[in-house]
Amino acid sequence: MHSIDVRSELAYRVDAPSSFHFSVMADRTARQTVRHESVRVVPELPHETIDAGPGGHRLLRLKAPPGEFRLAYAATVEVDPRVDDPARLSQVPFGELPSEVLGYLNPSRYCESDRLFGFVGRQFAGSPGGYGRVKAISDWVGKNLAYVAGTTDVSSGSADVLLQRAGVCRDFAHVAISLCRASGVPARYVSGYGVGVEPQDFHGFFEAFLDGDWYLFDPTGMAPATGLVRIGTGRDAADTPFASFVGSAALLRKQVSVDGSRGPAAPPTGATSTA
Amino acid sequence: MHSIDVRSELAYRVDAPSSFHFSVMADRTARQTVRHESVRVVPELPHETIDAGPGGHRLLRLKAPPGEFRLAYAATVEVDPRVDDPARLSQVPFGELPSEVLGYLNPSRYCESDRLFGFVGRQFAGSPGGYGRVKAISDWVGKNLAYVAGTTDVSSGSADVLLQRAGVCRDFAHVAISLCRASGVPARYVSGYGVGVEPQDFHGFFEAFLDGDWYLFDPTGMAPATGLVRIGTGRDAADTPFASFVGSAALLRKQVSVDGSRGPAAPPTGATSTA
Amino acid sequence: MHSIDVRSELAYRVDAPSSFHFSVMADRTARQTVRHESVRVVPELPHETIDAGPGGHRLLRLKAPPGEFRLAYAATVEVDPRVDDPARLSQVPFGELPSEVLGYLNPSRYCESDRLFGFVGRQFAGSPGGYGRVKAISDWVGKNLAYVAGTTDVSSGSADVLLQRAGVCRDFAHVAISLCRASGVPARYVSGYGVGVEPQDFHGFFEAFLDGDWYLFDPTGMAPATGLVRIGTGRDAADTPFASFVGSAALLRKQVSVDGSRGPAAPPTGATSTA
Amino acid sequence: MHSIDVRSELAYRVDAPSSFHFSVMADRTARQTVRHESVRVVPELPHETIDAGPGGHRLLRLKAPPGEFRLAYAATVEVDPRVDDPARLSQVPFGELPSEVLGYLNPSRYCESDRLFGFVGRQFAGSPGGYGRVKAISDWVGKNLAYVAGTTDVSSGSADVLLQRAGVCRDFAHVAISLCRASGVPARYVSGYGVGVEPQDFHGFFEAFLDGDWYLFDPTGMAPATGLVRIGTGRDAADTPFASFVGSAALLRKQVSVDGSRGPAAPPTGATSTA
Repeated sequence: MHSIDVRSELAYRVDAPSSFHFSVMADRTARQTVRHESVRVVPELPHETIDAGPGGHRLLRLKAPPGEFRLAYAATVEVDPRVDDPARLSQVPFGELPSEVLGYLNPSRYCESDRLFGFVGRQFAGSPGGYGRVKAISDWVGKNLAYVAGTTDVSSGSADVLLQRAGVCRDFAHVAISLCRASGVPARYVSGYGVGVEPQDFHGFFEAFLDGDWYLFDPTGMAPATGLVRIGTGRDAADTPFASFVGSAALLRKQVSVDGSRGPAAPPTGATSTA
Repeated sequence: MHSIDVRSELAYRVDAPSSFHFSVMADRTARQTVRHESVRVVPELPHETIDAGPGGHRLLRLKAPPGEFRLAYAATVEVDPRVDDPARLSQVPFGELPSEVLGYLNPSRYCESDRLFGFVGRQFAGSPGGYGRVKAISDWVGKNLAYVAGTTDVSSGSADVLLQRAGVCRDFAHVAISLCRASGVPARYVSGYGVGVEPQDFHGFFEAFLDGDWYLFDPTGMAPATGLVRIGTGRDAADTPFASFVGSAALLRKQVSVDGSRGPAAPPTGATSTA
Repeated sequence: MHSIDVRSELAYRVDAPSSFHFSVMADRTARQTVRHESVRVVPELPHETIDAGPGGHRLLRLKAPPGEFRLAYAATVEVDPRVDDPARLSQVPFGELPSEVLGYLNPSRYCESDRLFGFVGRQFAGSPGGYGRVKAISDWVGKNLAYVAGTTDVSSGSADVLLQRAGVCRDFAHVAISLCRASGVPARYVSGYGVGVEPQDFHGFFEAFLDGDWYLFDPTGMAPATGLVRIGTGRDAADTPFASFVGSAALLRKQVSVDGSRGPAAPPTGATSTA
Repeated sequence: MHSIDVRSELAYRVDAPSSFHFSVMADRTARQTVRHESVRVVPELPHETIDAGPGGHRLLRLKAPPGEFRLAYAATVEVDPRVDDPARLSQVPFGELPSEVLGYLNPSRYCESDRLFGFVGRQFAGSPGGYGRVKAISDWVGKNLAYVAGTTDVSSGSADVLLQRAGVCRDFAHVAISLCRASGVPARYVSGYGVGVEPQDFHGFFEAFLDGDWYLFDPTGMAPATGLVRIGTGRDAADTPFASFVGSAALLRKQVSVDGSRGPAAPPTGATSTA
């Protein structure tokens, strides 16, 4: 059991009435419990929380009039990951994948896995399937991509990133997801908070489907799998932006803090699932 | 009520044991009823039918040993579309979209709507929102794209197609979906069978979310909306290929026939929903 | 005869010894004469001027030690364009193009004309060849692209720009060049200075090969063809950046001014060539 | 001195009067001499030979009426490459490159070197500059790309090929050229004939500018540098197609044969230049 305190604050200037969806609230899963949680909108604006799609994460919805507002979210989240022996986590054959998992084998906007079969075949020819393959991919991404803000933008997909060999957390995750899917392993994007992320911000990582469950990986290597708090899950980052809106507005400030100091001194070693 | 007979036959040569997923069976929805249905695999191979993901379509799964086999599917399908007055179908504001629909606003592998905001803003500046916008998009696609086999391949997305102004049914649908999403209208891909498709083959079209329901459009103009039989629904064609497999195999033959002659002489005019 | 005064100033911070190539000097052609010209580098650094490639423009080369320096260029340039009757400017058939012009029919990094045959065929189906076609293209670009800084970057090609329908002068020129080449008209990029460019900066435009000569067009519509001073000519902007360097340096300041007030009150109407 | 016999035959069906440019004739350079040469067009059609652009290769031009024709070219070519000690071939610093070479540092249609700086920096971090870097690149391409016809088409650039890790000779050359340019080494495409190419066809390779001269490399490893006959030279394959035409025609047959059996038993080892 790990208790992690997360906080995020977003401030906007609104120029015309705008509708916002925020994806900043910690998800509730069998292995992630939200103990205390507060949402503050200043000035007070009516808002609601809705469950979004099969990923099941929560969206905070509000309509904002012209002017400024800020949204402050804070939560204490307990993550109780199941930690498994990696050696057991074999790859589920294509013909035995559960139907609800199949979509995560398909290419998506930022994870064009169909373009990377050749790359995977060449680069990971010697690596096994299952957990070994996913670990090899995640490690390769962490080692071969430089973490550099500003080298990618909202149109950068995994193919672009793989060539320029640089990006931020979302790009690291996108490349790893593409390489997993091209290896026959269903993989999906997880947005969240991470202990130890530097500079601290909303984080992006991924999980892969192995032996009947979803296992977490952070290819940036910044957060231990047990220090990851899930906000939302999707095909790729297109499904889980921290905010989206229609109208006219500008982000003035974004601050994120994550405190996992009450967690265990050393996270357990092994494959970690919080799905 | 329209009764449509559909048949499809696929033959494969299998070089090494392979797992197949076929997406050829007519879907079952509130407004599409499968009256008679037969699946034949020759030689007989054990197979099963599973429900796939939120789209809910049925996948036919089988494992094939080396050799040849063919899959023959036939069904009589009754489609009982709800036909509505287009004038009523207004665009649902972003802040009021049901959560299960939100994902269909996001860009996907073949529908990179995020790259087309400028195009939409310029090309459809004068067109209204809601049904009028979707109809304008579908008509524009039908008029400005040439239907030419061989101009696109499995890597062609809507941006490519929009530049080369040519493609096949799946490309027409992808462009229309992208333009809808960039217009703020959720849109998704539908694979199926279509009365009057020439040359007859598996068909691809799309539906847009308007006023609380999904409405069908065929931008190729080949099939009336009431002559469309749904197989599956997805973000784009990546989610609904008629067949996918892992192993080593080659498609030897594909035949599709669709007979809607028992339908009404003139399909009703209006916006059509079979979701 | 038009006399135009141009000035440009660039300031750099150099962090490690760096080699620079500057493309800021007005070109010398049969119809463009450089009357007075000064180059100042502060602090004084040895520099040389070289003629670059078939385009023939002049490069200013220097090596800079760590520290800061600025380069100030000023010139009085007389342009004496040949002005021809557009009606005479027919398209040169493929089989009669001079060999030195053929390369300007080929696709290049930012002008992927091979991807735009379909677009050209559909969009300009009704327009004639020759000057009429090029004028229609240049006007269409000016009308259908928004001039917005920051929407494109150094990786944006004409296909991207054509979809997002926005860019700056170089993007306008790239789209027009691609559409000309896809129409069978050789076209090339010209970097330079332009009277009336707003905000004033280095400018990019293009010329098309018609009836045996190169004719100037500015699809942004900001400068009259007689108010354009040529710096360099190339396949696209990749060939004529105002500066390139190897080493480690950062641009601190860039200022451009262009004064054409001593020119004639009204530029002559017609097709303009200064090649 | 190596004597190489080359033959090529192309047959076309012409549906409407068409203008052709053929790039099949062996180039004439200081180190490549065309001893005997014949061009036959059946039925006889007037044709001319023109020198094309700075690359200087020869284009064969003809106009064909509807019907069929074939072009048969045969030549005996003596290549007398200068063979140099690779150890001497250092990289020419950016600030000392001759002006006519600078364009070959720029990205081009199929060699988007600007997108590969990150890849080069990571993949070749340990390799030296100069000949060592170019050799490392050429070898890496030969080892990491699969030679598979049909995996690429006329729109495939080096970035696509680098991801799918497969292509044909032109793709191998494009990737190598891009990686050289991104390493600061000018590189250009050479079309030609190659002894030992399998299956025999027109060939594509590249040359890099080192220590004041252009040195040949064939990343496919199929032909020794001394078994390469140059047809044309360009930025990339866009500049040197074996045939291009305007009109309406279809290629019916293409046959190439190359016989280098009269050459020396063992080609000399070393860096080879025929520029």
